[in-house]
Amino acid sequence: MESNPFNPEMIVILAPGLPATRRRRIRERLESVGATVSVVDGAERQYLELRGEIAALQTIAIDGWPGVDKVIVLGESAMHWAPDDEADCAPIQVAGQTIGQGEFTIIAGPCAIEDEERALRIAGRVEAAGANLFRGGAYKPRTSPYAFQGLGKDALPILEKVRNQTGLGIITEVLDPRDVERISQVADMLQVGSRNMHNYSLLKELGQASTPVLLKRGFSSTIDEWLMAAEYILSGGNSMVVLCERGIRCAAASRKVVLDLGAISELKKRTHLPIFVDPSHGSGEAYRVPSLAKAAVAAGADGVLIEVHDQPSEALSDGRQALTPEQFEKLVPELYSIRTALGETGTQFSEQVVGSSSGEDH
Amino acid sequence: MESNPFNPEMIVILAPGLPATRRRRIRERLESVGATVSVVDGAERQYLELRGEIAALQTIAIDGWPGVDKVIVLGESAMHWAPDDEADCAPIQVAGQTIGQGEFTIIAGPCAIEDEERALRIAGRVEAAGANLFRGGAYKPRTSPYAFQGLGKDALPILEKVRNQTGLGIITEVLDPRDVERISQVADMLQVGSRNMHNYSLLKELGQASTPVLLKRGFSSTIDEWLMAAEYILSGGNSMVVLCERGIRCAAASRKVVLDLGAISELKKRTHLPIFVDPSHGSGEAYRVPSLAKAAVAAGADGVLIEVHDQPSEALSDGRQALTPEQFEKLVPELYSIRTALGETGTQFSEQVVGSSSGEDH
Amino acid sequence: MESNPFNPEMIVILAPGLPATRRRRIRERLESVGATVSVVDGAERQYLELRGEIAALQTIAIDGWPGVDKVIVLGESAMHWAPDDEADCAPIQVAGQTIGQGEFTIIAGPCAIEDEERALRIAGRVEAAGANLFRGGAYKPRTSPYAFQGLGKDALPILEKVRNQTGLGIITEVLDPRDVERISQVADMLQVGSRNMHNYSLLKELGQASTPVLLKRGFSSTIDEWLMAAEYILSGGNSMVVLCERGIRCAAASRKVVLDLGAISELKKRTHLPIFVDPSHGSGEAYRVPSLAKAAVAAGADGVLIEVHDQPSEALSDGRQALTPEQFEKLVPELYSIRTALGETGTQFSEQVVGSSSGEDH
Amino acid sequence: MESNPFNPEMIVILAPGLPATRRRRIRERLESVGATVSVVDGAERQYLELRGEIAALQTIAIDGWPGVDKVIVLGESAMHWAPDDEADCAPIQVAGQTIGQGEFTIIAGPCAIEDEERALRIAGRVEAAGANLFRGGAYKPRTSPYAFQGLGKDALPILEKVRNQTGLGIITEVLDPRDVERISQVADMLQVGSRNMHNYSLLKELGQASTPVLLKRGFSSTIDEWLMAAEYILSGGNSMVVLCERGIRCAAASRKVVLDLGAISELKKRTHLPIFVDPSHGSGEAYRVPSLAKAAVAAGADGVLIEVHDQPSEALSDGRQALTPEQFEKLVPELYSIRTALGETGTQFSEQVVGSSSGEDH
Repeated sequence: MESNPFNPEMIVILAPGLPATRRRRIRERLESVGATVSVVDGAERQYLELRGEIAALQTIAIDGWPGVDKVIVLGESAMHWAPDDEADCAPIQVAGQTIGQGEFTIIAGPCAIEDEERALRIAGRVEAAGANLFRGGAYKPRTSPYAFQGLGKDALPILEKVRNQTGLGIITEVLDPRDVERISQVADMLQVGSRNMHNYSLLKELGQASTPVLLKRGFSSTIDEWLMAAEYILSGGNSMVVLCERGIRCAAASRKVVLDLGAISELKKRTHLPIFVDPSHGSGEAYRVPSLAKAAVAAGADGVLIEVHDQPSEALSDGRQALTPEQFEKLVPELYSIRTALGETGTQFSEQVVGSSSGEDH
Repeated sequence: MESNPFNPEMIVILAPGLPATRRRRIRERLESVGATVSVVDGAERQYLELRGEIAALQTIAIDGWPGVDKVIVLGESAMHWAPDDEADCAPIQVAGQTIGQGEFTIIAGPCAIEDEERALRIAGRVEAAGANLFRGGAYKPRTSPYAFQGLGKDALPILEKVRNQTGLGIITEVLDPRDVERISQVADMLQVGSRNMHNYSLLKELGQASTPVLLKRGFSSTIDEWLMAAEYILSGGNSMVVLCERGIRCAAASRKVVLDLGAISELKKRTHLPIFVDPSHGSGEAYRVPSLAKAAVAAGADGVLIEVHDQPSEALSDGRQALTPEQFEKLVPELYSIRTALGETGTQFSEQVVGSSSGEDH
Repeated sequence: MESNPFNPEMIVILAPGLPATRRRRIRERLESVGATVSVVDGAERQYLELRGEIAALQTIAIDGWPGVDKVIVLGESAMHWAPDDEADCAPIQVAGQTIGQGEFTIIAGPCAIEDEERALRIAGRVEAAGANLFRGGAYKPRTSPYAFQGLGKDALPILEKVRNQTGLGIITEVLDPRDVERISQVADMLQVGSRNMHNYSLLKELGQASTPVLLKRGFSSTIDEWLMAAEYILSGGNSMVVLCERGIRCAAASRKVVLDLGAISELKKRTHLPIFVDPSHGSGEAYRVPSLAKAAVAAGADGVLIEVHDQPSEALSDGRQALTPEQFEKLVPELYSIRTALGETGTQFSEQVVGSSSGEDH
Repeated sequence: MESNPFNPEMIVILAPGLPATRRRRIRERLESVGATVSVVDGAERQYLELRGEIAALQTIAIDGWPGVDKVIVLGESAMHWAPDDEADCAPIQVAGQTIGQGEFTIIAGPCAIEDEERALRIAGRVEAAGANLFRGGAYKPRTSPYAFQGLGKDALPILEKVRNQTGLGIITEVLDPRDVERISQVADMLQVGSRNMHNYSLLKELGQASTPVLLKRGFSSTIDEWLMAAEYILSGGNSMVVLCERGIRCAAASRKVVLDLGAISELKKRTHLPIFVDPSHGSGEAYRVPSLAKAAVAAGADGVLIEVHDQPSEALSDGRQALTPEQFEKLVPELYSIRTALGETGTQFSEQVVGSSSGEDH
């Protein structure tokens, strides 16, 4: 992993009346891991302002030290996902489609590739309806070892054929670091599913790849954890990461998860990475998908990922949440009409949001 | 509480090979509480199909009885909130504003009434910007007993003055069953806050009132629990209930709660009650409010409830999430342009959603 | 509500390079609400150390002010629940039973009072088995308005008879502020259920009462919120509050809630209030109750609240989680044998926990 | 993966009045995937009782089919983790220590191996205090790519030396399927951490291994998902799986997670696999660990996993939750005294719990 220029500003609040020997010990220990320490005297306590290498400062749990009351981390400006990291702002292209940067992207297709004929048929329908990229699972992570696990490598030639016949770029999921290279030969974009957001071996391998990655949010992961998962890929050298919100688990939710559309404005403020939304997994039932897809667009998403199957009731996985091609054809123009109504390109939206948040009254 | 015509269809699945004496005991007990029992013989077990009074069947935890494997409730058709309960479908009017039925409603105002001058000033601004109703808290439920609890009854004359000067209908929160009558004399709509969704004493009192009620979802309540809270009011005789989604707690959420916009399509299918959304509490920070307000409209909400304060940084409560009048003025036309883009009235949307869910492929 | 001597230590961290005019404005505003402000100059930013009245400082959302980066609250020492608030440390007595202070209390009885004969029969059994207090619901909060709501005031004479015949003190739930006085005439302890932990009208009324209160944790409430709910009662003048953990909602839980036994050691450290546990609601199924009751004792609980019914399958509510008298008789000596094994009285345990947490290595 | 003998009993409840053609279509489709279908005629609807291969029945989302109201799965008896699967009940031995079967196991050691000297020093202390196995991370999954990631393969010789010098068996975490073989050469037991419970590539690889596996619960995973993760390993041929509860995320939790001790009795009933508890991750702070460790033992855990560090404030990871050797020495006899007080061996406990749950009154 390349060296990282992160230069955090941390503030360590010491306990009141801490003996000088203990204060010195704390300071020495901080300096021994490379921190630059500036001491500030308060009325009854000291504050230590720190600068230094994140690698060193994060390995030590400063807030657990005796005599330390609180540790505050104020800056995240040197993370690769931070909005002002110009070097990482190169536009992401997937099979000729620009991702983010004011462009709107629709990814559609079945949960899993079941057979060639069906894959081609669905791909033809979604392409005609306005999809920009085709999704279809080759390797499927399933809760039960006895459930359909996808066709595996046998699905890869089918995906290749879909691209050749429809011209649509291909996105498919990767589960195992040993498969990254093989799948990259076929796919234009690699998906990391929700269950693998914390699979750091896989993320590190993807950091070495030169294929764009769609990184879904872990189903119980915070935004901070999600961005740090992206950092595993970005810091490895692969700057082409797209975030995809797909719903988080919640005790009160009626369908397992709640789609966190509020994450969009927060992410637009904190990162330059494009933000996609998966209203299919985010709702769990087909009848709820159009409402949430439209909401995602209105909230400012750069793209959506929608499961489409021509016979949902026959699907080998996730049929319950798949739209039919007819439902998808009806939905696409609605999504574009919301984009038009808002007069938005992604870039303008981003500026507007960040602008409004820096106003005097927040 | 009036007698209720609920006539559920429940199915009780008995354990395989259950002795006849035990089966008879179960049947007798069900009949003793008024159920009509139809016995179905399976290959190795019996099924009991039940009809009867919900009041009787719900008081006994049938699924805990020895010999009972599962209890399935199939119907909710006789609940007052069920979509086919015609008697309850009378349109709700609040100060001349039709709620739902294809009409879109914007409620705006400060979290709490702080003083008369400020209340009138904010009300003037939101009225000019396009708000339909004015919100302002008199009684405030606060986590700390030492936090500002609202002006209480001293705020009521101020709310009355706001209505007289602006013509806006007034909505304000009620916390205590003993206050329902007094507040109803001033308010056009009573709000039940998230913390009181399970306060059944209060809900029963509101069932006796003749003022419309905005019922916020408990911050950790399921949709089923929320609808049953509405049923407490509806079954008491007050048919004017509006549901308001305001975010539910979630471990992975970055700002305490996640706004559950997926609830809208589910509620549109299950109930005729209008659905509002509160993007202010649902986001917790002003910069996230416009994105979520637009998303709520695109998802099909019948109205939104937005906190507006002319000096958010001086607000006595919730200032962090309040829009300024300027931000509100910018947002309102965006909300309407989404409505227009979708060519929707609430009624049409409702039909479309329900229609799409009844298709062959779901 | 009486004046409160809370004297927090808060630290406001200002943004780097904040203009002097803004800094002055912030300082003036803080002083205008009564804070004493001490300014500390850091290398690039200022810190403001505050002391003052909590009532004033909590009404203003300081962390939302422009120019404020963070607000840290360091002290909670003046809350009535804080361990060093000697005035509030008077022992709680319920019908001759000391609560906490090294004594262990077992509360047992049915979820709801169903009829006099059954109540007396169950009370006789649990008294003989070693219960110290009898629980039985008169007013029941139920999710459905059609479910059994308890016998209401008709249950009160039954509770009185139970006390007269068995000598057990009585605890029962109160739902409505208008019922506090009436129920207090019969009950030795009033229970606030999970759904009403945020019902501040009720809590304020209980603050005026002279009956001990068992305050259950809201099913999605943090420990901070729970302690502040206790503060509503304590600050009103009623110092007899017992906290009762009963499980919190969690997306991954198999039975609705997870019993948060980790709360015990945290509460022992932060408050002098006795801590009880309700393993019946905390598990939802009778077979899981003994395991969790024993765990609660081992974790240091001052008491447990266990539902017992002589015919759980006939119970009008919560039968699934009730122990039979036989199961309860088997459990009680196990609970005491754990107490003995640990050589603990509540007081010693408390000292041990607080002591171990103040060691050098935490 | 070997063929699986699972023979579920599922019941499909059809919609009332479903046309015969649709009913036939459903039946044909079920039979086409290998199900044996028995049709039961209810008063207004049909029920289909199914038997068949789980692999086929789980690949099709029957409950999403038109005309299907509900699908009930009644049996899980053929899963490898099910308690009556005798073939899988062979005792698990780790370095001479029997796991479960009435034996109690204490695993202790630092979060991460930092250097040889410290590892040996801590190992000596925990061995002397009564630990049965030594834990120490070589490969560490960290949220940030810049945090200390463990010494990796350089830690393996250190672990080997610990075993040679102390005689303690070694348990360490595996993150990557490519590391399973290498780590197995050194470790007596492989740990799958919470973040990887859903990493099916890793689980499949472990199914091919002949080293016992400690499978931690995903931090937002249900018990069903956890057992199915175990099934990935068991069905691959490795029958030596130990489950370890370590806390689940919860919105109301004060320290990220809540330790779900209620899972113990449920798992004792549903599976023969031994159940361990990790009170260190389950509490997040050292002062809370003893209380939860004792609670785990009282609840019936077969073992505990406790982080011990001789200088917690200097630890490179998780220092905040580590006990000192002194604290650990004080805790161990308390754990055993609870075991003694309960007169329990794991086996007896298991019988008691299962026994009590099969009684007439549940």
